[in-house]
Amino acid sequence: MTDASSSTRRTVRVELGDRSYDILIGPGLIAAAGSEIAARLKGRRIAVVTDEHVGPIYLDPFMRSLSTSGIEAVSLVLPAGEKTKGFEHLMAVCDSVLGARIERNDAVVALGGGVIGDLTGFAAGVVRRGSRFIQVPTSLLAQVDSSVGGKTGINSRHGKNLIGVFHQPDLVLADTDVLDTLSQREFRAGYAEVAKYGLIDKPDFFSWLETNWREIFAGGPARIEAIATSCQAKADVVAADERENGPRALLNLGHTFGHALEAATGYDSSRLVHGEGVSIGMVLAHQFSARMNLASPDAARRVEAHLTEVGLPVSMTQIPGDLPPAERLMDAIAQDKKVKSGKLTFILTRGIGQSFVADDVPASEVLSFLKDKYPR
Amino acid sequence: MTDASSSTRRTVRVELGDRSYDILIGPGLIAAAGSEIAARLKGRRIAVVTDEHVGPIYLDPFMRSLSTSGIEAVSLVLPAGEKTKGFEHLMAVCDSVLGARIERNDAVVALGGGVIGDLTGFAAGVVRRGSRFIQVPTSLLAQVDSSVGGKTGINSRHGKNLIGVFHQPDLVLADTDVLDTLSQREFRAGYAEVAKYGLIDKPDFFSWLETNWREIFAGGPARIEAIATSCQAKADVVAADERENGPRALLNLGHTFGHALEAATGYDSSRLVHGEGVSIGMVLAHQFSARMNLASPDAARRVEAHLTEVGLPVSMTQIPGDLPPAERLMDAIAQDKKVKSGKLTFILTRGIGQSFVADDVPASEVLSFLKDKYPR
Ligand SMILES: NC(=O)c1ccc[n+]([C@@H]2O[C@H](COP(=O)([O-])OP(=O)(O)OC[C@H]3O[C@@H](n4cnc5c(N)ncnc54)[C@H](O)[C@@H]3O)[C@@H](O)[C@H]2O)c1
Ligand SMILES: NC(=O)c1ccc[n+]([C@@H]2O[C@H](COP(=O)([O-])OP(=O)(O)OC[C@H]3O[C@@H](n4cnc5c(N)ncnc54)[C@H](O)[C@@H]3O)[C@@H](O)[C@H]2O)c1
Ligand SMILES: [Zn+2]
Ligand SMILES: [Zn+2]
Repeated sequence: MTDASSSTRRTVRVELGDRSYDILIGPGLIAAAGSEIAARLKGRRIAVVTDEHVGPIYLDPFMRSLSTSGIEAVSLVLPAGEKTKGFEHLMAVCDSVLGARIERNDAVVALGGGVIGDLTGFAAGVVRRGSRFIQVPTSLLAQVDSSVGGKTGINSRHGKNLIGVFHQPDLVLADTDVLDTLSQREFRAGYAEVAKYGLIDKPDFFSWLETNWREIFAGGPARIEAIATSCQAKADVVAADERENGPRALLNLGHTFGHALEAATGYDSSRLVHGEGVSIGMVLAHQFSARMNLASPDAARRVEAHLTEVGLPVSMTQIPGDLPPAERLMDAIAQDKKVKSGKLTFILTRGIGQSFVADDVPASEVLSFLKDKYPR
Repeated sequence: MTDASSSTRRTVRVELGDRSYDILIGPGLIAAAGSEIAARLKGRRIAVVTDEHVGPIYLDPFMRSLSTSGIEAVSLVLPAGEKTKGFEHLMAVCDSVLGARIERNDAVVALGGGVIGDLTGFAAGVVRRGSRFIQVPTSLLAQVDSSVGGKTGINSRHGKNLIGVFHQPDLVLADTDVLDTLSQREFRAGYAEVAKYGLIDKPDFFSWLETNWREIFAGGPARIEAIATSCQAKADVVAADERENGPRALLNLGHTFGHALEAATGYDSSRLVHGEGVSIGMVLAHQFSARMNLASPDAARRVEAHLTEVGLPVSMTQIPGDLPPAERLMDAIAQDKKVKSGKLTFILTRGIGQSFVADDVPASEVLSFLKDKYPR
C-alpha cells in the first residue's frame, strides 16, 4: 500500500451495534488486503471464493497479500454468471469452507461481483450457523450495492433471490482500481445503482453525477467519491432498517419494473443485465409518476437524458428481441409485490431526489401505462 | 379438543423478546392444531413437511384440523431417517414452500421428529430470508429438545449439523398422545435427553424420574409433566443464551462422548441412535468426573443404574459391532471440540444435578480413560 493510496482512501462505517463494520474504498486495496484483514481478524485461516473472470486477474495478488500477512488461504473458483447463484454451488462453497476447517475466528471471503458476494455470503451465513465474512467486491454494482447491507441469497426456479439469509460482513474492501478491467457494459449497469441513490433522496448528488460522470468512468478521485457517497447512502438505510421492513424499500426504486423486465427476458444477460433493467425501471417510475400527476414530466426527461448520455438503455423498446405482452409483465410485477385487492406497492417520486413508497397504486393504471410504453 | 385435553394441557413460554413463543404440551393437539394455529397466524396458507413414518399416521388428521379452521395447506412427505438432513432435501423443501406461495403471514410446519424439524426449520429460515415456522414434534426427543430453541440445520460430509441457521419457531405443538406410536427404542432414546435435564442441574427432577419413569413411558399426566419440565429447562437456557455462546453449552452433557460414538458407528442407526449415544456419554461423563476426583463414584453408579433400568445402553461394550481404537475416538472428540494445546472443553459434574463446563480437561486423561473403558 503506497502513501498515495492511503491518503485517497475513504472509510464508510455501517452502524449496526455489535455488528457494525467498515467499508474501505480506494485504490490498492487488493494488495493491502492481507494487512487490513490481519489487523481485524483473530484467526489466520481464510477460504476465498471467486469466479472464472475475476480469479485469473485478482486471485494471485490477493492470495499473495494474505500470505505476506501470515494468513493461510484456500480458494475456490466458480463459473461466472447469474446461474452460479443456485443450490449446487451453495453446497460446493459450504463444503469447501468446511473442508478448509474455517473456525469461529477465521473467515470466508467473496472476491468478485454480486453473484459471488450473494452466494458466498449465504454460505458464510449458514456454515456453523454463521461464520465471519469479508466482501471484496470487484464490480461497480457490488461495490455500491450488493456488498453492503448483509442481504445474501440464491435464486430458485420460482424467482430470483428467494432463498437466503441476512448475514452482515465483518469488513468490505472495495478496491476502486479493479473496476478498470470490468467491461463497459457492466460498469454502466453498476452506474445505474449509483444514479439511483441520487434519485431516491440526493438531488445534489444527482446533479453532481450529471456533471462528473465521465471522471467516474475514467477512474480517479471522482470514482472514489461516487462510490463512497453511494455506500454511505446504502449504509444509512441499512442502519435504519436492517431487515427491510420499512424505509429500505426505497432502495427498490426502478426495481419493480426492472425485475419484471429481467424475468421477461429470461434473465438472459445478453439481452438485459440487472442494472440495465434498473435504468429502464427508474425512467419508467419517473414517467409513471408524471402520468399520475405526482411529478413534473421534466424530472423523467432529465433522468432519461442523463442515463442515455452514459450509454444505458432507458426504454423497453431498446431491449433486443421481443417482450411479452403487458399482461405478462403485470404477472411478473404481481409476483414480485404483494397485491392487495388490485393495489400495488411501488416506489414513485415527486421529482429528482424525492422518491417515496406508494402502497395504493392501481394495477389497472400500471397496465395501461405499460401498454402505452410498449405497443405491439 | 375435549375439555379433558385442555385441562391437562401445559404451556411453556420461551422468552426471547419479540421472538417469544409458546410450547403447548398435552393430548389432542394434532386435532386442535387448526384452531391453535388460526388463533395465532394472520395468514391462511401452510406448507407441511413430514416423513414416511409419521405421514401415514398423522398427516390426514393434521390436514383435516387445518382445513376445518379455514387454513389451506399443501404437504410434502420425505424419506424417514438422518440421511434426509442433506442439501438435496433442503432444496426440495424450499421449492415446495415457494411453490405453495407461502408469504409473510403464512407458515411452514414441521410434522415429525428431529430430522424433519431441523431440516424444515432450516428451510423456513432461508425461504424469503426467514418465514414463519411451526414445530409439531412427534418424537420424544423432538418434543423435549430439538423443537425448542431455534437451532436448525443439515449434515455435511464433514460432520453433523454443520450447516444451518438459528431460526426460532412461532409456536410448538407437542401432542403427547402421538408418542404412543413411537417405537420403544426411539422413546427410550428421547428419554435420555429428559434424564439429561435432571443431571445438568435438577437433582429433584432426576429423583422423580427414578420413581416415575414407568408412568412416563405408559402415558398420562407423568408424561406431560416430564415433557413440560424438560421444555422449561431448555427454554430457560435458550432465553439466557440464544446463540450458544455460554451457558447453553451445559446442554451438551453426554454429547461429546455421544457424538464421537455416533461418528464411530458411521451414524448407522441400527447400531446406535443419538439418544443412546447420549445415554452412554452421560454415564462416561459421570465416570470420568469420578476418576478426576470431581464427583463421588456413587453418582455415576446411580446414573448407570437408572438408565439401565429404562433399557438404555450405558457402556461402549453394549454397542453392536466393533468400535475403532480409543485414538480414533479421540480424533472425533477433537474434531467436535476446540482443542487448545492439549486441553479439551467438556461438561463434567460434581454429582447428580451439578454439571459444569470444564475447559481444561487434559486430552491424555480422556484417552487413557477411554482405553480403560473399551479395552481391545
Ligand atoms: N445482496 C444485495 O443486496 C444485492 C443488491 C443488488 C444486486 N445483487 C445481486 O448482485 C448480482 C449482480 O452483481 P454483478 O452485477 O456484480 O454481477 P456479477 O457478479 O455476475 O458480475 C458481472 C460480471 O463481471 C465480472 N467481473 C466482476 N468484477 C470484475 C472485474 N473487476 N474485472 C473483470 N470482470 C469482472 C463477473 O465475472 C461477471 O461476469 C445479482 O445476482 C443481484 O441479484 C444483490
Ligand atoms: N435442533 C436441535 O436443537 C436438536 C437437538 C437434538 C437433536 N437434534 C436432531 O434431531 C434428530 C433426531 O431426532 P429424532 O430422534 O426425533 O429422529 P427422527 O426424526 O429420525 O425420528 C426418529 C424415528 O421415529 C419416527 N417417528 C417420529 N415420530 C413418530 C411417531 N409419533 N410415531 C411413529 N414414528 C415416529 C421417525 O420417522 C424416525 O423414523 C437428529 O438429526 C439430531 O441432530 C436437533
Ligand atoms: Zn439493484
Ligand atoms: Zn441430544
